[in-house]
Amino acid sequence: MQPSDKALVPFVSVDNMMRLIHYIGAEDMLRGLAEYIEADFRRWELFDKTPRVASHSAEGVIELMPTSDGEVYGFKYVNGHPKNTKSGLQTVTAFGLLAKVATGYPVLLSEMTVLTAMRTAATSAMAARHLAPKGARTMAMIGNGAQSEFQCLAFKAICGIDKVRLYDIDPGATAKAARNLAGHGLQVTTCKSPEESMEGAQIITTCTADKQFATILTDNMVGSGVHINAIGGDCPGKTELAPGILKRSDIFVEYPPQTRVEGEIQQLDPDHPVTELWQVIAGTAPGRRSADQITLFDSVGFAIEDFSALRYVRDQLIGTAFHDDLDLLADPDDPRDLFGMLQRAGG
Amino acid sequence: MQPSDKALVPFVSVDNMMRLIHYIGAEDMLRGLAEYIEADFRRWELFDKTPRVASHSAEGVIELMPTSDGEVYGFKYVNGHPKNTKSGLQTVTAFGLLAKVATGYPVLLSEMTVLTAMRTAATSAMAARHLAPKGARTMAMIGNGAQSEFQCLAFKAICGIDKVRLYDIDPGATAKAARNLAGHGLQVTTCKSPEESMEGAQIITTCTADKQFATILTDNMVGSGVHINAIGGDCPGKTELAPGILKRSDIFVEYPPQTRVEGEIQQLDPDHPVTELWQVIAGTAPGRRSADQITLFDSVGFAIEDFSALRYVRDQLIGTAFHDDLDLLADPDDPRDLFGMLQRAGG
Repeated sequence: MQPSDKALVPFVSVDNMMRLIHYIGAEDMLRGLAEYIEADFRRWELFDKTPRVASHSAEGVIELMPTSDGEVYGFKYVNGHPKNTKSGLQTVTAFGLLAKVATGYPVLLSEMTVLTAMRTAATSAMAARHLAPKGARTMAMIGNGAQSEFQCLAFKAICGIDKVRLYDIDPGATAKAARNLAGHGLQVTTCKSPEESMEGAQIITTCTADKQFATILTDNMVGSGVHINAIGGDCPGKTELAPGILKRSDIFVEYPPQTRVEGEIQQLDPDHPVTELWQVIAGTAPGRRSADQITLFDSVGFAIEDFSALRYVRDQLIGTAFHDDLDLLADPDDPRDLFGMLQRAGG
Repeated sequence: MQPSDKALVPFVSVDNMMRLIHYIGAEDMLRGLAEYIEADFRRWELFDKTPRVASHSAEGVIELMPTSDGEVYGFKYVNGHPKNTKSGLQTVTAFGLLAKVATGYPVLLSEMTVLTAMRTAATSAMAARHLAPKGARTMAMIGNGAQSEFQCLAFKAICGIDKVRLYDIDPGATAKAARNLAGHGLQVTTCKSPEESMEGAQIITTCTADKQFATILTDNMVGSGVHINAIGGDCPGKTELAPGILKRSDIFVEYPPQTRVEGEIQQLDPDHPVTELWQVIAGTAPGRRSADQITLFDSVGFAIEDFSALRYVRDQLIGTAFHDDLDLLADPDDPRDLFGMLQRAGG
């Protein structure tokens, strides 16, 4: 039996997501994603916002991150299992869905492991465009895991960074990132210490994966005037920066109720002042105010960024072949006749 | 590029779900589902239980219903949009997922529109096996929409009902249900009033779809000794029974925090005594105690039932062809080398 169009939901597999990225071009897609994310941050107040719904276990966490703008509903399924790499699995995998609020019918199901890497990098660079010192050209990239090359490429595409200085506690990770970044128009320097990576850098991105209170940056390592893009501190008990740096910085966050629990600021008093990034973008709060200020984007990832990324993918898919159609929804001729549909399928 | 096995998630489409049901046999599957649901109710205390995460709009609701038994995590996406039928869409569509808690990796994605109809009916009949009067043979089925035939068949397969008496405010719905039930070994009587449908019935199932406080059963319609299976009252503002009936009944529910908001008992004081069905099944609370008692299963549907249904499907799928394999998870050779995987896909 051929399902009707109403039953079909476009599905973007990992393979099709990669094809879509190459079809659009990775840098163009990062710019496009940043535009969609920025547009949604600008209308931030309109969204249903709830902290993620987390199911914790000894091994990790599985989360559902729903949101809605009143017309479209979206959610992401994402896990975080730091020990997965030991058995050759990804630490983080994800998929997401968009649906019409008016009917509840899904309109897109998509892999989001690759897409999340793209949206995280696009969000970081979009934030830096508002917060980093003018004319920044050099970024220190500390932590050279799965997210690092996406960060470097996004900062090139969106902020005009042309030099990246890579450091990881594992030189193999740094070598891998340097290999991957060759030929992308970035001047890549591999460094033997975090200090070395920060020489001449106006932007410092930290993206390490330890699930524990770590001190990737100590207070005396960070001079005035830089922008810190802190990606790795993103769950309770996992931070990267010394509290002293936080106290010298102006801190920008996505959604305070979530960041207070998951971000770098879990180390600070619960009433330590922070600025919501959307207010900077909407023009209701200042971003960078002076050349010697330290700005810090304490990023943990928020549902609206996934929503924006799925919206972007849905819009780009139109007219392309980069999707399969899943027979996900039952669509009997008469909505009251589900049983009849089932019976006829057997006949 | 061929994704590795780790990247693939078995997906059961609507078409494959219907094939699976016919392969197993609808009544055998209802019995199998009831066994899995009963087994999970018996170990109820072990589950992570949270009320569903609902996103309400003027047109309806979209919900995520997560749960976990510590080894397996599951969630269901389900919408409820009463006006959908006007545009030829289903009021309720659903899909669900199981994942391993230890890795966060999904192990099953399945349609759940058809499966939810099956699990709802199996849950009702499983509850009635514990609560209905002994030797019950006749059921009144009030409300002859999409769920009604599943209910009738489940009560036959699981409780030994052999006579059903159908009533709906729309005679067309009754005629449809009677047609669909022909040849299933049930003696089917179509009735012109709710009163007529209840003649000689030991079990009364109400399953109507109005999203408003309705009175499908008034107090004087219900005599002593019956079991009422109330399916239709399942969201705030939607009930089917007169409060008088509730006050004369011993009330059994799935998860009180959810049923107090969504079930028939939203009409009663918040401290009105109810019994949790799992306690009856585990033997720690009495079910039916006397022949003249009215028992009421105030069913709203709970995440654990979906979890059980997905577990059942996963187990039945083994060795069958009733699934597709979705390339849902990115699986780079080196988990830290997501970017390298993306680059190689373009080369």
